[in-house]
Formats: sequence, C-alpha cells, structure tokens
Amino acid sequence: MIHRRDLTIPTHGRGTVDITSHVREAVASSGAREGLATVWIQHTSASLIVCENADPTVRRDLEAFVHRLVPDGDKLFEHTDEGPDDMPAHVRTVLTQTSIGIPIAAGRLVLGTWQGLYLWEHRRAPHTRRLTVTVIGE
Amino acid sequence: MIHRRDLTIPTHGRGTVDITSHVREAVASSGAREGLATVWIQHTSASLIVCENADPTVRRDLEAFVHRLVPDGDKLFEHTDEGPDDMPAHVRTVLTQTSIGIPIAAGRLVLGTWQGLYLWEHRRAPHTRRLTVTVIGE
Amino acid sequence: MIHRRDLTIPTHGRGTVDITSHVREAVASSGAREGLATVWIQHTSASLIVCENADPTVRRDLEAFVHRLVPDGDKLFEHTDEGPDDMPAHVRTVLTQTSIGIPIAAGRLVLGTWQGLYLWEHRRAPHTRRLTVTVIGE
Repeated sequence: MIHRRDLTIPTHGRGTVDITSHVREAVASSGAREGLATVWIQHTSASLIVCENADPTVRRDLEAFVHRLVPDGDKLFEHTDEGPDDMPAHVRTVLTQTSIGIPIAAGRLVLGTWQGLYLWEHRRAPHTRRLTVTVIGE
Repeated sequence: MIHRRDLTIPTHGRGTVDITSHVREAVASSGAREGLATVWIQHTSASLIVCENADPTVRRDLEAFVHRLVPDGDKLFEHTDEGPDDMPAHVRTVLTQTSIGIPIAAGRLVLGTWQGLYLWEHRRAPHTRRLTVTVIGE
Repeated sequence: MIHRRDLTIPTHGRGTVDITSHVREAVASSGAREGLATVWIQHTSASLIVCENADPTVRRDLEAFVHRLVPDGDKLFEHTDEGPDDMPAHVRTVLTQTSIGIPIAAGRLVLGTWQGLYLWEHRRAPHTRRLTVTVIGE
C-alpha cells in the first residue's frame, strides 16, 4: 500500500520548523501498521534534519555552527543573485538532508525519545515550502 | 511492484554529473504511478546530491566550498595511498549522500522546479561509477 | 512484503561500529529477493555512514577531520548539559545520516566492493544504540 501526503509549510525565515506532527498525521491517515515513511522537501535552499527535540538551545547552537561554517556573504561565492544568503542556503542544504526515511511499527513512527523531524529554512526571508510524505506499508 | 535499474555513469574527474534524466527513465520504464525511487551509489569516493539545476555557478561554488573545507593533501590525513585526493574523497562522500529517496506521483518524480539529481565525483581522475535505482510503486 | 528487524548495538564510546553483517542478516531473514533495506538509528548523538571498509585508517582520519571541524568544548555552544561532547555529537549527527536506504538484488544488499555500513558513536562514553532495519521487497 502506498499513500502520499503533500504538505505546505510556511517558514519565518532562517531557522527550524518542527514537522513531526505533520508526518505522524500522514502515517495515521495512511492506515499503515508496518512500513516506511519517506519525507521529501522540494527545494534546494531548505532541508530536513532529525534533531534533539527537548532543548531549543540545541537548534540555536546548530544554527550558530552552520553560520560559522558557511558564512553569509563569503567572498568565495560567485552565485549571489538572491543575496548573501543565497549560496550558503544551497551549501547548507547539500550538507544536510533532502529525504529521510523513517520506519513505521504498530502504526506509529519509530522515533527515539529525543528525536524530532525538522524543516530547516536556510534563507533569511520567510518562504512557503512544499514537502511530500510517502508511506509504503501494509 | 519493485523495479530495479542499474546505471553505469562515466565521470570526467572531480565535479558533478546530472543524473536526473537517468532516474526519470528508470521511473518511466517501471510503469509506477505512485511510489518512491531510491537512488544508490556503490562507492565511497563519489556521492549523490540534490542541487539547484539552473545556474552552473552554484555547483562551482559548492566545489570551491568543499575544497576549502576538506583540502587535498591535508596533513591531518594518514590514508593517502591513492594520492592527496584519496581521503578528502571519503570525507566529502560521508558529508553528502549515498542514497536518496524521491517520491513518484502521477508517474513522475516529484522534483521542485530547481531540483536536479547529481552524481558528485570526488576523485580527480575520471572513473566509471555504478548506481542502482530502486522503484517501489503501484 | 515488509519485514522489520530491531537491532541493539553496544558502542565503546566515540568511534565507528561495523553493522554490515547485522543488516545482511535482516535482509536474509526477510526472504526478500528484490527491494530496499532502510536502516534507521533512533538517536540524535549517534549516526549512520557508508564508508570504505578495507583500511581502518580511513575511519580514524574521518574521526580526526570531524573532531577538528566540530571541536569538543567549543565556546560557540550553549547546550553543554551532558559535557563538552554533547553538542558536537548533535552536530556530527546532523552532518551525517540518520537513515540510509540500500537496494537488494538477488537476495543480497547491493554494496560496492569497498562499502561498509557503520554506526558512528559521537559521544565519548559507551552507549547502547537502537536501530531498525525495514525491508520492503518481494
């Protein structure tokens, strides 16, 4: 059985958005008891991560780390059409995930206690992001 | 329904090769209308990325960034059997993807407007790379 | 056909653990001839990689590289509840993989000659890590 759910997620500019409940709902509505839920983001300047979900400082530290690693306005970059955060957004995306496959057991996502699924907006401006959850199950 | 397509892709040394059309063909020949196409690369010194497909400068900047992050001939590395680009190729592979799962809807890959699928050759010399596309669908 | 195998893997603190044989066994016991095996790790301070499996120096160099990139005790980090390796473990996880999908052909994982599957423990202390292998096949 294959079930697809398209999601439209607004972002408030750079930062993470918890999408765990959206993916849970897609799995619940599929009716699958066992299988795999694959999350896909249809962009190259926003990405997906699995991250600690208890202390928001973790995601702030993550943002700080990646900001230091891939600085906005880096002189290295030629592709600056959309501003100083354009090329860094592409690099951040490539260093993280565009698709993530999560197992389903007894009708639920197999997430560890501290695991959350996040959309990571890499552009400074708010965007509307499109995602697809594909459930393959029985 | 499960459909497997093996691909053999020649590279011209370090740089990206657009494999989107190959994956599209694998999906078309599978006949799947809904499902998931998972691309896998059978190597540890070449990898897969989803990247902006309109401006080639994006991929040149990406190459420049990773070259600065993981320099060839870095004194840190002991594993230099195959030259100064040997260990950097393994690091670049680990920081990017070996498998990527893309949804299929209405018989087509669900790709955003600017998304392309790329094989990223990390060795300086040309290589022949083997990939596998697995379509699970109905 | 969907087959799930839960794995419990002890680690000896920071470093890699070869899990290839565990995933092979999960595939063998599923009876699948063609399909996909997706490995998932239920943690945010340990991750998965596909890496060269012949020379252990590769994984030592990888550890050295990531240690330089994300140093323990970095002043940048505020989230230090569990010590100087706490936040670096989360960053390392985000820069590598939480799920990996490997094709199955003729009942076997489609691995290149030098490909091994590894659990990468990012915490200094030994841990017990939970993984799930989901086989979708026929």
